[in-house]
Amino acid sequence: MATLADIARELNISKGTVSKALNGARDVSESMRKQVLEKAVELGYHRVVHKENAPKIALFITNMEYTRPDDFGYELVSGFRKAAEPAGYEVEIIPLTIRMQQEISYDSFMVQGNYCGSLFLGLSLRQDPWMKDFKTCKTPTVLYDNHISSNPNVTYIGTNNQEGMDLAISYLKGLGHRKIGYLSYELHAYIYQRRYYAYLQSMIEHGLPSDPSYTGSAHHVSECLAQHLPRLLSMGCTAILCSHDILAHSVMVHCQELGLRVPEDISILGYDDIPLCRYAVPPLTTIRQDRESLGKSAFYALTSQMNHVHVSALLLHATLIHRGSCAEAEQRTPTED
Amino acid sequence: MATLADIARELNISKGTVSKALNGARDVSESMRKQVLEKAVELGYHRVVHKENAPKIALFITNMEYTRPDDFGYELVSGFRKAAEPAGYEVEIIPLTIRMQQEISYDSFMVQGNYCGSLFLGLSLRQDPWMKDFKTCKTPTVLYDNHISSNPNVTYIGTNNQEGMDLAISYLKGLGHRKIGYLSYELHAYIYQRRYYAYLQSMIEHGLPSDPSYTGSAHHVSECLAQHLPRLLSMGCTAILCSHDILAHSVMVHCQELGLRVPEDISILGYDDIPLCRYAVPPLTTIRQDRESLGKSAFYALTSQMNHVHVSALLLHATLIHRGSCAEAEQRTPTED
Repeated sequence: MATLADIARELNISKGTVSKALNGARDVSESMRKQVLEKAVELGYHRVVHKENAPKIALFITNMEYTRPDDFGYELVSGFRKAAEPAGYEVEIIPLTIRMQQEISYDSFMVQGNYCGSLFLGLSLRQDPWMKDFKTCKTPTVLYDNHISSNPNVTYIGTNNQEGMDLAISYLKGLGHRKIGYLSYELHAYIYQRRYYAYLQSMIEHGLPSDPSYTGSAHHVSECLAQHLPRLLSMGCTAILCSHDILAHSVMVHCQELGLRVPEDISILGYDDIPLCRYAVPPLTTIRQDRESLGKSAFYALTSQMNHVHVSALLLHATLIHRGSCAEAEQRTPTED
Repeated sequence: MATLADIARELNISKGTVSKALNGARDVSESMRKQVLEKAVELGYHRVVHKENAPKIALFITNMEYTRPDDFGYELVSGFRKAAEPAGYEVEIIPLTIRMQQEISYDSFMVQGNYCGSLFLGLSLRQDPWMKDFKTCKTPTVLYDNHISSNPNVTYIGTNNQEGMDLAISYLKGLGHRKIGYLSYELHAYIYQRRYYAYLQSMIEHGLPSDPSYTGSAHHVSECLAQHLPRLLSMGCTAILCSHDILAHSVMVHCQELGLRVPEDISILGYDDIPLCRYAVPPLTTIRQDRESLGKSAFYALTSQMNHVHVSALLLHATLIHRGSCAEAEQRTPTED
C-alpha cells in the first residue's frame, strides 16, 4: 500500500505538501491539490484510519426526498444504516450533483474525503459524468439498480426482475389473461430495459403472445396514457402490467375515467410496492422490492468488496403482493381503433 | 417459534417421544420418527443450540473429488470454510446421494441433523429428488450454479455469465474475429443454458453473426469433436469459444490433430480457469471464476438468508485470463463440407 512518502517522491515534493494537499489546506494551490489526489488514486493510497475514528462510507443520493419517511428510498437508506452502523462504520449522506462530478473525479473525491466505499441511490445516473469513472474506479462501490460490467470494484444490487415478471405473468395467466399489455417509463435507464426484456421473455416462457406491439414506453406518464394505453385496450388486452407503481396508478385512474371498472373490466399490476399502492382505489396489486433488505444487502455487498470478494450482482427475491386491482379475465373483443 | 411441546400437542403424543424421535432413538418407530420430523418442519421448529456447540452448516457435494486439492471444487469448499469457521460455524461435508434424497425430505433431513443452513455444490442436480423440495423448503439454502425461482429461502450463487461471455467476445472481436463458434456441454443443465444464451446475446451486442448454426452441444465431448467441430470449421469460424475448459482443451488437441495450428490458424477460448489451463500446450486463454471468492460469497449469502435478507442471486465478476490459445484472426475461407 502506498504511503505519503511514495506520493511525495513520485511528484518530487515534500511529504508536508502532500499531507496539506490531501487535507485541503488553503496554502496549497488548486492544481497541486489535484495533482496530489490523482497520484494518490494512481498509487492506491489509503489514509490510515485512527482507532478513535469510525471508517466512513459515502451514501450518494440524487434526490434528497430519499431521506423522507414517505419516500421509496427512505427504507433503503435506513436498512443500509441499520447494517453499517452496528458494524462500526459512519455513513455520510451526500447529495450527488452534476457540478461536483464535473469538478473532481470519483476516485479523487473518495480519497480526498477519506471514504472506504460508497453506495449510490438514484435511477437516473445515465448522463452523470461519474458513470465513465465507474468503469475503471478503484474504490469499492455499490450501485442500486445500475450495472457496470467488468470493473471488479463495482457491484450492482437490486431485485431479480426476471423473477418479478415471472410472478406477475404467472399470476395473470392463472386468472385467465392471455393478452397482457406492458407500459413502461422510457427504456434508456438500465432498470427499465431489464424489466422490459424480462416481460417479453416471461411471456414466451408462459406460452403467451410476446410482441413489442403489446408494449409502450414514454418519458412522460401523460404520453403513455394518451398514446399507448388506448392502443393496448383496442388490441383486446385484458390486463396491463406497468414498469412501476406510479405509472400503474395513473393507468388505473385513466381506465376508470374511460368508464372501465378495475378489476372487473381490466386488471392492472404495478411494480415496486411503494406506500401509495395501499391507498389506491382499488388497492394496487404489485411486485414488491423489499427496500430495507436492499439497503442491508448493499452493505453486505460493500463489505464483500472490501474483503476482495468481487461481487458483480446481488439480486433479492421479488414477491407478489395481492391486493384489489386484478381479477379473472373478462373476455373483451378487440375494438376498432 | 415452535417448541417440543407444540409438536407433542399437535400429534397427541408425549414430549419425551418427540424428543426421542428428533434424536433418532431406537425405541421410536420409523413411521413415528417421520411423522415427528414432518410436523417439526411444518411448524418451523428449530432446536436450541447449546452455547458450547457451534451451529452447523451442511455442505452437500455430489462428487467427493471436490475435496481433493487438484479439483475445481476444492477452493470453493476451502473458501466457504475460511469464511464460515472463523464466524463460529461448524461445516459438515456430506456426500449427496440419490438414495438419501429418496428416503427423507430435504427439510426433514435438515431438522433431523440440526443444520441451520446448507450449500450445495454440483452441477447435475437436475434429476435429484430434492430439486422439487427446493421450491418450497424453509431452510436457508445456497445452490452453486443452480437457480430456483420464487422461493425466498434459496439463493443462487455463481459467476456473471453475461459478463464472462462479453469479455470473451469483446476480446476476440478486438483480435479481428467475426465468425466465432460456440461448443457446449448439453444444454439441460441450468448453467450451460445461461452461458449459451449469454453467448448469443453478446454476439448480437457486438454486431457479430449470432446464429444457433454457429453452435453445437452434446453430452459427450467425442460427439462435439466428431460432429460439431468439423461443421464450424467448414463454415469458416476463426475462433471457437467453449462452455468449459475440459471441452476447450479437447477441441484444441483435436484441431492440432487435424493439422491446424493454435493459435495461428484457429483461436480457442475456454471457461472456468481450471488448473489444467496453465499446463495445456499452448496454455489456454479462458474466463476465470474466482473459486475461493465463490466459496466465501456462498457463506455471505447464507448468513444474509439467516438474517432474513432473501437473496435470489449473488454473482461474482468474471475475468479474462490471457494465455496462449488466442491470436489475431487468420482469414480462412469457408471450405466445402
